[in-house]
Amino acid sequence: MKIKEDLPVHTKIIKGGICAPDDIKAAGSENGKYGVAIIYAENSSVAGVFTSNKVIAAPVEYTKNIIADGKLSAIIANSGNANCFTGEDGVKDTKIAVNMVSKLLKIPENQIANASTGVIGRKMPMDIIAELIEESVQKLDHSPNASIDAAKAIMTTDTVYKEFAVETKLKNNQSVKIGAITKGTGMIAPNMATMLCFITTDAIATPQALKKALQIAVDDSFNMLVVDGDESTNDTVLIMANGKSNAEIAISGESEGFEGSGESEGSEEFDEFYGEIDSNFQEALNFLTKELTKQMARDGEGATKFIQTEIKGAKSKEEAKIAAKSIISSSLVKSAIFGGDPNWGRIVAAIGYSGIDFDPNKVSIAISANDGNDKKERTAEIAELVKNGNILADENSPNLKKAEKLMQNKEITILVDLNQGNSSAISYGCDLTYDYVKINAEYTT
Amino acid sequence: MKIKEDLPVHTKIIKGGICAPDDIKAAGSENGKYGVAIIYAENSSVAGVFTSNKVIAAPVEYTKNIIADGKLSAIIANSGNANCFTGEDGVKDTKIAVNMVSKLLKIPENQIANASTGVIGRKMPMDIIAELIEESVQKLDHSPNASIDAAKAIMTTDTVYKEFAVETKLKNNQSVKIGAITKGTGMIAPNMATMLCFITTDAIATPQALKKALQIAVDDSFNMLVVDGDESTNDTVLIMANGKSNAEIAISGESEGFEGSGESEGSEEFDEFYGEIDSNFQEALNFLTKELTKQMARDGEGATKFIQTEIKGAKSKEEAKIAAKSIISSSLVKSAIFGGDPNWGRIVAAIGYSGIDFDPNKVSIAISANDGNDKKERTAEIAELVKNGNILADENSPNLKKAEKLMQNKEITILVDLNQGNSSAISYGCDLTYDYVKINAEYTT
Repeated sequence: MKIKEDLPVHTKIIKGGICAPDDIKAAGSENGKYGVAIIYAENSSVAGVFTSNKVIAAPVEYTKNIIADGKLSAIIANSGNANCFTGEDGVKDTKIAVNMVSKLLKIPENQIANASTGVIGRKMPMDIIAELIEESVQKLDHSPNASIDAAKAIMTTDTVYKEFAVETKLKNNQSVKIGAITKGTGMIAPNMATMLCFITTDAIATPQALKKALQIAVDDSFNMLVVDGDESTNDTVLIMANGKSNAEIAISGESEGFEGSGESEGSEEFDEFYGEIDSNFQEALNFLTKELTKQMARDGEGATKFIQTEIKGAKSKEEAKIAAKSIISSSLVKSAIFGGDPNWGRIVAAIGYSGIDFDPNKVSIAISANDGNDKKERTAEIAELVKNGNILADENSPNLKKAEKLMQNKEITILVDLNQGNSSAISYGCDLTYDYVKINAEYTT
Repeated sequence: MKIKEDLPVHTKIIKGGICAPDDIKAAGSENGKYGVAIIYAENSSVAGVFTSNKVIAAPVEYTKNIIADGKLSAIIANSGNANCFTGEDGVKDTKIAVNMVSKLLKIPENQIANASTGVIGRKMPMDIIAELIEESVQKLDHSPNASIDAAKAIMTTDTVYKEFAVETKLKNNQSVKIGAITKGTGMIAPNMATMLCFITTDAIATPQALKKALQIAVDDSFNMLVVDGDESTNDTVLIMANGKSNAEIAISGESEGFEGSGESEGSEEFDEFYGEIDSNFQEALNFLTKELTKQMARDGEGATKFIQTEIKGAKSKEEAKIAAKSIISSSLVKSAIFGGDPNWGRIVAAIGYSGIDFDPNKVSIAISANDGNDKKERTAEIAELVKNGNILADENSPNLKKAEKLMQNKEITILVDLNQGNSSAISYGCDLTYDYVKINAEYTT
C-alpha cells in the first residue's frame, strides 16, 4: 500500500540552502521579534504563487505586480509584522523598504520583491526594519551560513529554521542546483500556508517555464499541507533563476497547453507538457518542495507528531486530494493521533464528509510509522485496521494492539485505499496538541 | 449593530422538556457508558433531517426509511455506541431494538425510529441495550423528570443534559406546546452536528408541514453550529406531532412552492410560503432550536466560552452564512478567544478565505459580551475594533483595552458588518481549549 516518495534518481541532496545555486547571495538580521532577510540574485527570471485569501497584505499586492514582467534581482522579506490591513501606510512602507534596498544594492526598484509575515493590522516598525535592511545588505554572502541567517530571519512561531537544496542532472547531462528557505507553522491551510518560501536556481529558465514548474510542484506539496485550516493573508512562494549554470530547463520553448492543473505524472496532459521542461528538473523541484512541506508539517504549531495521509484507489486525482485533505484537516483525527489512538472511525467519517463519492464497504485503512529518523526507511510494518470495509481492529484484537504500538512513533502515515480507481494523493500535517492551543491563545494580537 | 434574538411575542418558555406537550411520554436508563432513551407519542406525524455524511450509521439508514410514510409512535435511542460501520450486524441490531420496543409497547414496528450515538465501528452490546430498553419501557412517563432521564440517557461527552420547551399561541389563539431533548458536544460541523435531537409537539400537523417547519428552523440553528468542523455519521433530528392540542399549524394546506432553502423572514419566497404554516408556530420552533443550539455550543467539548458570530451587511443570506461559519470554524479565532485576545486580524483573515466577495476596506468589526447569566440582557457595551476598514484598536488604544476586558466574559459575540448589503446570519460555537484536545486525545476508539 506504500506510495514511494524516494529521491529522484538524477537528484542528490546538497548543502547550502538558498545559497547552494551558483552566485546566489543571502543575508538575515534580527532584532527582538523582528527579522529581515535579503535574497540577491541579479537579473533573474522569476515566478511566484500567492495566497488566494481575499484579504491580501500590501507586500503581496506589490510583489504580484513587480514580478509580472518576469524579472527580479532581489527579495526583501521581514518577519514580526505582516504589513496586512495597514492601508495606505502599508503600501508606503513596502515602497520605503524596496527603495532602501534599491539604493544600497544599486538595482532598479522594479526588480525587487517584498514579503512580510507576522501580526496583522499593526503599522510596520520602519525604524527597526530600516536598520535591519542596512545590516543585511552589508552581510550579503554566497555561503551556507548566509542561507541559515536568512532562514532564521523569517521565522515567527517556527521553532527551527527551514532550508533545503538539491542538485540534479538535466537530460543533456548538465547540472543545475536548486536551493530554498521557507517559514511556516500555523495558519496553514490547503491552497497555501502562512508561509514564505524563496527558491533559487542557477538554471536558465524563462519566467513562463518557471511558473509552470513551480505550479506543478506547489500543487502536490505546499497545497497539500494543513496545520490548522486557516489560510494566511501573506503566503508567498517565489522562484528565481539566474542562469549561471548555463543549463537550460526548457527543452522545447513555450507551450500554452498545460497549465499545471495538478494532474500527476502519468497523465497524458502532463506527459505532453513534460516534453517542454526538463523532467529531471521538475522531479528535483517537486522533491525539494515536498521536503520543505514536511519540514513545515513537522514544525507545525505545537506538533508532537508528523502525519502523512496517503490515499490511493480514488476515482480521480482531485477526489484523492479532497479525501487526503479532509482527513489531515480533521481536529478529531489530529487529536486522536496526539493521544496515540488509531481511531479509524474518525478517519472514515472524515472521508465521508469530504464530499467525494466513495463506498464505505470497499475502503481499506492501515497505519504505518517510523521514528522520525530521516536516514531510516519508513518501517515496512503496517497495521491493517479495515480491509474492504471489514473491521480488522476490533477491541483487544492483535491488529489494534499493533496499531497502538506503531502510533507511539513520531511519524505516522495513514494509508487509505478507496479501491475505486487508480488515482492517488498525499497530504501532510501534524497532530493537534495542548501546545497548539497554548501558542495560539497566547500569541499577541 | 446588535441583531435581536428575543423571545417571540406569542411564545413563552415552559418546563417539562420533551414531555411538555400533551400526552408525550419519555424515559431514560443508563448502565455505565451506555444509555437508552425512549420517546412515546402514539400515532404522530413525523419529519426528520439527517447527516449528509456519505458514511451513514445503520439506525440513520433505517429511520430515514421508516419515517418516509410520515407516521411514527416511538423513538428508541441509545448512547455509547454509534452502530456505524457495523455491516449486517448493525442492521440486525437496529431491528432487534425496534422489535423489542414494538412488542413491549404493542405498536407496529414500522412506527418506531432508531438513533444511536457514540463510538464508531464497534458491535452493539445488545445484551446491555436490551436490559435498558426493558427498564425504559417500564419507566415511561409524562413528566418533567422523564424528560430529564431521557436527555441524560443520550449524553456521550456532554457534561450537562439538554432540554427545552415553549408554548405558543397560534394566529387563531389556540395554544400548542413544543418540547425537545438534544445531545451533542463534539464532531459538530456546519450541516448538522454529532447530535441527536428529538422534538415533540401537541399541534396537529401533516408530515409535509412538519418537514418544512423543521428545515427552516434547522437551517438557522443546528446548521450554524460549529464545534470542531467534523461532521458525524449519526446526526438525527426528528419532530413528532401528536395533535393532542387540537390546534392545527397549517393554515392553508400544502404547497410545493417553498422548500425551506434557508431564506430568512422578509424574503418574498418565505412570505409566500409563510401563509401556510402558522408563523407563530414557526417562530416558536426557530426559537427552540436556536436555544438548543446555544446549549450545545456552551457544552462544546472543552469549551470555556460560548461564541456567537453575527454577520450583517452581506450581499446575500448565503454569503452571510458562509462568512459567519468561516469565523466560528477558525482554530486561530477560537484559540484567541480562549486566550482572551480580541484578535480581529484573524477574524478578517477568516472572512478573507471564506470565499465570499467582500471589500476589506468597508468591513467593521466589534466585540460584545455578557457574563453567561441568561437572565441578563447581553451588555450594551461594545468595543469597536475596525470601522469601515479603519483600525480603531491599535496597540495600547482604549478600544483594545475595552475589548480585552469584555473578552474576560463567558459569552462573546463577534459583530461583523460587511457594509455591502442587507443580509445577515448568526453562527454559534465555542473556544478551542486544552480540554478539547484532552477529551479527544483520550476518548477511546
